[in-house]
Amino acid sequence: MKFSFKNDYSEGCHPHILQALMSSNLDQQAGYGEDQYSLEAKELIKQKIKKSDSEIYFVSGGTQANLIVISSILRPYQCAVSAGTGHILNNETGAIEATGHKVLSINKEDGKLAPDDIIPVLESHSNIPHQVMPKLVYISNSTELGTIYTLKELEDLSKFCKEYDLYLFMDGARLGHGLTAETSDLTLEKVAELTDIFYLGGTKNGALIGEAIIINNKELQQDFAFNIKQKGALLAKGRLLGIQFLELMKNDLYFELARHANQQAMKMKKAMQERGVAFLSDTYTNQIFPILNNHLIEKLFDKFEFYVWKKIDEDFSAIRLITSWNTGDKPINEFIEIINNEL
Amino acid sequence: MKFSFKNDYSEGCHPHILQALMSSNLDQQAGYGEDQYSLEAKELIKQKIKKSDSEIYFVSGGTQANLIVISSILRPYQCAVSAGTGHILNNETGAIEATGHKVLSINKEDGKLAPDDIIPVLESHSNIPHQVMPKLVYISNSTELGTIYTLKELEDLSKFCKEYDLYLFMDGARLGHGLTAETSDLTLEKVAELTDIFYLGGTKNGALIGEAIIINNKELQQDFAFNIKQKGALLAKGRLLGIQFLELMKNDLYFELARHANQQAMKMKKAMQERGVAFLSDTYTNQIFPILNNHLIEKLFDKFEFYVWKKIDEDFSAIRLITSWNTGDKPINEFIEIINNEL
Amino acid sequence: MKFSFKNDYSEGCHPHILQALMSSNLDQQAGYGEDQYSLEAKELIKQKIKKSDSEIYFVSGGTQANLIVISSILRPYQCAVSAGTGHILNNETGAIEATGHKVLSINKEDGKLAPDDIIPVLESHSNIPHQVMPKLVYISNSTELGTIYTLKELEDLSKFCKEYDLYLFMDGARLGHGLTAETSDLTLEKVAELTDIFYLGGTKNGALIGEAIIINNKELQQDFAFNIKQKGALLAKGRLLGIQFLELMKNDLYFELARHANQQAMKMKKAMQERGVAFLSDTYTNQIFPILNNHLIEKLFDKFEFYVWKKIDEDFSAIRLITSWNTGDKPINEFIEIINNEL
Amino acid sequence: MKFSFKNDYSEGCHPHILQALMSSNLDQQAGYGEDQYSLEAKELIKQKIKKSDSEIYFVSGGTQANLIVISSILRPYQCAVSAGTGHILNNETGAIEATGHKVLSINKEDGKLAPDDIIPVLESHSNIPHQVMPKLVYISNSTELGTIYTLKELEDLSKFCKEYDLYLFMDGARLGHGLTAETSDLTLEKVAELTDIFYLGGTKNGALIGEAIIINNKELQQDFAFNIKQKGALLAKGRLLGIQFLELMKNDLYFELARHANQQAMKMKKAMQERGVAFLSDTYTNQIFPILNNHLIEKLFDKFEFYVWKKIDEDFSAIRLITSWNTGDKPINEFIEIINNEL
Repeated sequence: MKFSFKNDYSEGCHPHILQALMSSNLDQQAGYGEDQYSLEAKELIKQKIKKSDSEIYFVSGGTQANLIVISSILRPYQCAVSAGTGHILNNETGAIEATGHKVLSINKEDGKLAPDDIIPVLESHSNIPHQVMPKLVYISNSTELGTIYTLKELEDLSKFCKEYDLYLFMDGARLGHGLTAETSDLTLEKVAELTDIFYLGGTKNGALIGEAIIINNKELQQDFAFNIKQKGALLAKGRLLGIQFLELMKNDLYFELARHANQQAMKMKKAMQERGVAFLSDTYTNQIFPILNNHLIEKLFDKFEFYVWKKIDEDFSAIRLITSWNTGDKPINEFIEIINNEL
Repeated sequence: MKFSFKNDYSEGCHPHILQALMSSNLDQQAGYGEDQYSLEAKELIKQKIKKSDSEIYFVSGGTQANLIVISSILRPYQCAVSAGTGHILNNETGAIEATGHKVLSINKEDGKLAPDDIIPVLESHSNIPHQVMPKLVYISNSTELGTIYTLKELEDLSKFCKEYDLYLFMDGARLGHGLTAETSDLTLEKVAELTDIFYLGGTKNGALIGEAIIINNKELQQDFAFNIKQKGALLAKGRLLGIQFLELMKNDLYFELARHANQQAMKMKKAMQERGVAFLSDTYTNQIFPILNNHLIEKLFDKFEFYVWKKIDEDFSAIRLITSWNTGDKPINEFIEIINNEL
Repeated sequence: MKFSFKNDYSEGCHPHILQALMSSNLDQQAGYGEDQYSLEAKELIKQKIKKSDSEIYFVSGGTQANLIVISSILRPYQCAVSAGTGHILNNETGAIEATGHKVLSINKEDGKLAPDDIIPVLESHSNIPHQVMPKLVYISNSTELGTIYTLKELEDLSKFCKEYDLYLFMDGARLGHGLTAETSDLTLEKVAELTDIFYLGGTKNGALIGEAIIINNKELQQDFAFNIKQKGALLAKGRLLGIQFLELMKNDLYFELARHANQQAMKMKKAMQERGVAFLSDTYTNQIFPILNNHLIEKLFDKFEFYVWKKIDEDFSAIRLITSWNTGDKPINEFIEIINNEL
Repeated sequence: MKFSFKNDYSEGCHPHILQALMSSNLDQQAGYGEDQYSLEAKELIKQKIKKSDSEIYFVSGGTQANLIVISSILRPYQCAVSAGTGHILNNETGAIEATGHKVLSINKEDGKLAPDDIIPVLESHSNIPHQVMPKLVYISNSTELGTIYTLKELEDLSKFCKEYDLYLFMDGARLGHGLTAETSDLTLEKVAELTDIFYLGGTKNGALIGEAIIINNKELQQDFAFNIKQKGALLAKGRLLGIQFLELMKNDLYFELARHANQQAMKMKKAMQERGVAFLSDTYTNQIFPILNNHLIEKLFDKFEFYVWKKIDEDFSAIRLITSWNTGDKPINEFIEIINNEL
């Protein structure tokens, strides 16, 4: 069995979660998210974000979170704006459009949006009422390319959105990784302050399933639960989600797991940098995109699973390596050894 | 803490499932339902239904299963037909309509549809193209009222649907309970033979989450996976669903759990019948609807949680009692004792 | 060629409209409803309804008006409430559901809704968030059965809707006929005062196409034009709609035409009443539903076209007769003659 | 009043149409497209395209035609592919997405799609089931930039679509102009042979409203009428559409009108070419995009209305001039005179 660097959801969940599922298993609890674990987990998250008036809902996955959030916010003629690399644009089978909304794509090398990227989209969508109205800015942190937003970047974007009456929504499927990157100066508290709505991803950071949608803008809180139910996302045994987030939030396990994943990726990155390897993007999270010789890539495939991301030229390709909360030192060291031997 | 007869999803899951989650936890598995557990579970289900060419998909809950199945089958102008008690009509926040499709309601006391109920709906929807076209018959077994279909009833309905070019879809959120009722002469194999598509409910029968959608009609199998993804139902860690169904299917644990739930309900039913209690409907599954004096209901509320279902007159109301795979003898005996003391 | 009493849209349009199309034909005008005719027609309507701050949009037909209005108002989880006879329920191929919204049906013999009809629906939809939220009350005047609302009835309903935070929407496909019925004490001005939004039907009252959507509630006016465009209802040559409404509104031609249609129907009604004929509903508009012997119906079919509406018993059926702005005295007299000869 | 070159729908309709509306006005006709005029018009179109088994439906406008066609063809997870200039992408307020379908954009300078443009889109959408499935190729002829497809180009595209199991849909809002361009070697008959479905635009070529949707692929014909009704496009007085297409098709008036519009545009083009004016695209239809000095543009604005299409540099901009079936020689000569005087 080859070790897989394909993604951060190859394993089950952190052992604390399994223990909590065990010990709580035969409790009778209210259904549909009214169980004590969900209530406690929500309180804990509110403390972490220091916003007692945010509202929190747990759903099972990222596409589900994205489609519920966006369709609940937009009026029929309004649309979302996303970097061209956005998950909602490429990897969700048209889930947003299936709820009736266009997603406008902005081409960005680094997967991040800034006010200057959005202004031209607003300008080219001013032929009322013949065009969709951009109303929601969708960003990911860390992005689909592993890059992250700085505090300053998020502040600028947040201010811009308020000025232009746009909602700012952050896809946080890998928010833990984004916030614990060594180069990040952003905090969970700041994310909650600067976005209208965001989610905290569990699936890619040690949970079995689960994303916590956090609604900061009170206007967007109204009747939100109806959307969860209508889209088939309200679990009868909501306890499954509550228990997981409760464990992840306790003692900041969530951040510890993400930091670990990042560190394991950085070890590989450092080893490759020392051998002169270039990278497709300069990332500090658990996704790295080294550009390697095809022979070396073949050699790596003997021991590991991963995706070839992009052909660079006849001889070189960028690959994607993802580490997880559970990636131990053994595969990392084996990987580095091959690099050191071959380069 | 009062014991709850409110529903069959108050507890966690069967211990076998937790053990399997434990022992498999650190395996690396492919995502999105391509893990070995999901593959094995699907094989096992195909063996049970004796249909090797059915296709199977696991999703997390019943509303999700219903909306994915119905929206994947119908063309925009086609609609579903359901008994007035149907879950899709009353308890899913318009999930089906949100995918663009009307659900026509047929008023039935017992929650079951027969050909004679459907014919008038077809006749009154013949003003082409000014009316929706009925195309899918939605039934539940056991129904939302705890009643069940006999083999003969399902055969008649299946034959009728074929004649009238309608698809037959069975909501099996409580299919285990339906099939293991002492009065049932229907089998899982027959359900697969007689329906175009159905699902096998896990959530209400010992799983944490999970419904297995089983597509028997090959025409409906094409591209089905896209719908799962688009509606946000494709779990990254599909293993969570696969492991659960694998455990439930092994040694027919699934049926054993459902039979247990039914038997516990039948004990209460029998005790009440012996004291002359009438019931709203004559059920043999894990849902019973005794009609009790309001004073007695108040007394029961001291010890138990349950729903008052329907006011009968000034003095009497029907209540709903639901038992689960995990309902032990203690609460049952306590309930019976109160009945015996008070009636 | 037999004369048709099948509907009120068998003929073309009032000659004034054709003359206006002629005389304006080669003017160059702005597109998409910004032409001078549309602007003038809107002003004239605002004067008639005495509400200068209402907003008006012209669309081509009733189903289009209904689906645009309802989908523009409701949030995804909200639904409309309609009498069981409502056009949106039975005769629009699920157009409302296709925009994502359920329509709840209330069974009413006379096709009219009163607060007492709606309260039980609100009460039975209180299981938040598991059920759709009723938010819009859809009524027709005259109704699909030819009946009309009195001022008192509309006042009561309007007050009720405000109390319960519901929007009141009147389908006015036959509003002219409703308001000019001899028994009506309602005025166009009152309709505008008491509804949040309504439309004034042209198609069934002398126009080629055209319904004027009139938005009285300012909250519902925002961005409405986007919905018109998105649903394919914004005509490039909006002048076609503007010219027609301008002609219909001038000198109250609209009401004159509707009154004429009503009067022609009333002549037939009176003749039949004098011969002891019973009616399915007691109407004073251009739709009447006499209950006639099947032999007489056959005889009438020799000379006229109309719909048999409902079988009453072995010997009798109700038929539907509709008159239009253009129904002359000749067919009316011929009809009456047959009645007088046969009864 | 300045003469407008803004678009081809500034005037009413061809006088033949008004005459036909007049002479038919008081006929009683069946509703909803079953009138004799619609039936005759459909027959005439079938003769012109030499396909007796095509099915034809008339709707009122282009956005409506596009959204009905696309939503009726695609399954929920399928999408359309369009040149980046496509009307459905930029000028229909997300009408396609509102029916649940994504439109993938392909960047093309000339607004035309060829197989080589589409292949990369298919290749980059092969991650089943995580991405939408491209299933329909949307093209316009003439395009939104005034360019046209040659017979060879359409044959290649048609063959490609068949090979790749894609539907080919031509937006023919300006099909008359496309086919009568002096450089066109394509015929209406060939369009019908090479596309699965297309429409013949009336609104921009002498009708008041009206586009004729022509369905050549029998598979796409099934139940199409339901979609027309559901989207609010089935006019009660379908005669209005039938009469117009009957007049336009008689004696090829349709092509005569389009040819006239093209010729008037070509006169201006020739005059400008003779003075060395460059054009944004090399068009032979009724849309031309000359690149002019801003001073000259200002001067032209004294006499004419038109759109400034694109800023070229500090001194020059491209403008868009559109001629219609009714553009006489006077404005053309005045325009040319200014050009000749100023350049």
